[in-house]
Amino acid sequence: MQRWKLTIEYEGTNYSGFQIQDNVPTIQGELEKAIYAFCQQNIKITVAGRTDAGVHATGQVAHFDLDYGDRKIDGFSLAKAINAHLINHPIAVLHAQAVDKDFHARFDAHNKEYMYRIISRPSKLAIEQNRVWHIRTKLNAKAMHEAGQILVGKHDFTSFRDTACQAKNPIRTIDRLEIICNKIDNFGGEDIRLYIEGQSFLHHQVRNIIGTLVLVGQGKWNNDDVKNALQAKDRKAAGPTAPPEGLYLVRIDY
Amino acid sequence: MQRWKLTIEYEGTNYSGFQIQDNVPTIQGELEKAIYAFCQQNIKITVAGRTDAGVHATGQVAHFDLDYGDRKIDGFSLAKAINAHLINHPIAVLHAQAVDKDFHARFDAHNKEYMYRIISRPSKLAIEQNRVWHIRTKLNAKAMHEAGQILVGKHDFTSFRDTACQAKNPIRTIDRLEIICNKIDNFGGEDIRLYIEGQSFLHHQVRNIIGTLVLVGQGKWNNDDVKNALQAKDRKAAGPTAPPEGLYLVRIDY
Repeated sequence: MQRWKLTIEYEGTNYSGFQIQDNVPTIQGELEKAIYAFCQQNIKITVAGRTDAGVHATGQVAHFDLDYGDRKIDGFSLAKAINAHLINHPIAVLHAQAVDKDFHARFDAHNKEYMYRIISRPSKLAIEQNRVWHIRTKLNAKAMHEAGQILVGKHDFTSFRDTACQAKNPIRTIDRLEIICNKIDNFGGEDIRLYIEGQSFLHHQVRNIIGTLVLVGQGKWNNDDVKNALQAKDRKAAGPTAPPEGLYLVRIDY
Repeated sequence: MQRWKLTIEYEGTNYSGFQIQDNVPTIQGELEKAIYAFCQQNIKITVAGRTDAGVHATGQVAHFDLDYGDRKIDGFSLAKAINAHLINHPIAVLHAQAVDKDFHARFDAHNKEYMYRIISRPSKLAIEQNRVWHIRTKLNAKAMHEAGQILVGKHDFTSFRDTACQAKNPIRTIDRLEIICNKIDNFGGEDIRLYIEGQSFLHHQVRNIIGTLVLVGQGKWNNDDVKNALQAKDRKAAGPTAPPEGLYLVRIDY
């Protein structure tokens, strides 16, 4: 029996999230089908971060155990074999690595990075449809970055987690929150990216943070409003949940 | 009668190129249908650069004449009205501008910029499928950039144009050719972008240049091979035509 660590990329648009469910397409379901197609074994994979419907990943991590009998397989060949059964899906195994039998994709993760993408411009999206949050109004990205620094550090994030979040403890530490803005055309269009890192996040935490910082970017909220939202420890005190299509799970460190 | 200049973005994947043709989906066809839906007039648009099937644009330009009777419409409202009829297509009018009646999208263009995107990594593409050329082997982007400088300036580009190219004169001037490479993961994956500018290009010129420079990036060709290909004035002397999905018409200056 060998434990394998997979690093996975996917576009989440047409899937009901990572976690396997009956009768709907999921990333986990397609990966497990591809593994079955390659080795004819029903293998359950364990993932680092379950992403919601419509959320993407460029560096998701999962592990599984494979009993391949007396045959040998290396990581390169394993990734290639799984990918060969994913050709009709926007899901790819970037890397497969043999790991110790006690490696755990979820419990051993000590840092996660998410990116959230916004395109602000008046006209509809063409090329980036389903891969960014489209906001028609101008945003002040510098103000969003500055207000975001209020959330960096160790806080009770009750105001920023989904009311259905099942984590026992609402305290989390954000180690980095950076917002970078680039001009994309001569008509005021901007590509705004949030990079956020921490050991772990609550359910919808990143999307609720972005939904709140967009209020700042639109000039509706100031830094004090963000401070008050954090202190209120009440989901209703913070901004709305940003849509899933802008969110990417980028990197997990072990 | 008012002449309008449109700046247009599109993902070319599911279209048989820009130019209208019978019985196949085209960018021009969808734009003219959208204009008809908005004003009930059959209007023909004139484009700056006809792109091939599968090629994308973030800054295509076209013009057309609209007789809107006594009614007034501004550029913002015109773009919005056309976009409202493009919701099911990855085509967007970024900007509409009223121009003089002698403005011509094609003949007045004095500079065009194209970008060509490559992702080099062993595993299949997920998120960027159809929007970049996927090459599984490692490329030396620095060597590609250096060999590309041989093509900058005024040359007879017979070796780099399609044998069916109808331009009378094969002489063109490349004002800028720059190749930039960025790491995209921890497994050797790289995002390589070519930026190329000139007043005009021959049919397949950019794709034939990229197809040739990739031979350099793979170590199969050196700078002398590129010089010899240019001097041969024979399409068979240069490299293969790169696929359309990596090519973007980025900007046209007037």
